[in-house]
Amino acid sequence: MMQHSEYLGYAAGIITTLAFLPQAFRIFSTRRTRDISLLWALAMNTGIVLWLLYGIAKNDLPMIAANSISLILLMIILFLKLRYR
Amino acid sequence: MMQHSEYLGYAAGIITTLAFLPQAFRIFSTRRTRDISLLWALAMNTGIVLWLLYGIAKNDLPMIAANSISLILLMIILFLKLRYR
Repeated sequence: MMQHSEYLGYAAGIITTLAFLPQAFRIFSTRRTRDISLLWALAMNTGIVLWLLYGIAKNDLPMIAANSISLILLMIILFLKLRYR
Repeated sequence: MMQHSEYLGYAAGIITTLAFLPQAFRIFSTRRTRDISLLWALAMNTGIVLWLLYGIAKNDLPMIAANSISLILLMIILFLKLRYR
């Protein structure tokens, strides 16, 4: 059975992960990324890799799941940022 | 003494927190937020509150520190998004 804190972690992970979906869709539809900081996109990709490794080191499933999916979406956003400057 | 994983957590937290700085500065200087998704900003603020509570529940200092500062920067970005539509 999950502890209460695990539910909190999964809720946090689901929300912050899904947050990148409307951002990615917005870029897909407008093909504009001017107002998005390239440095933000680069730093987020780097940082989320580290959060993922931290989650693995701590064997923390909510962190591993959330950061894996966030990383995929952030890689897409970074790719779009580089493509539609 | 910190465990190795703690350093990883602090590095992750510092990078993902600082990532929001260039984004906030970009909005301050351009006063433009059109390419930034409002839903992203709302979801990130909500999700980071939950990550902060999760960090508190787990007594995880890197998570508490990083998410506290990220939340402040994300609140600023959300405010700017609402102000400069």
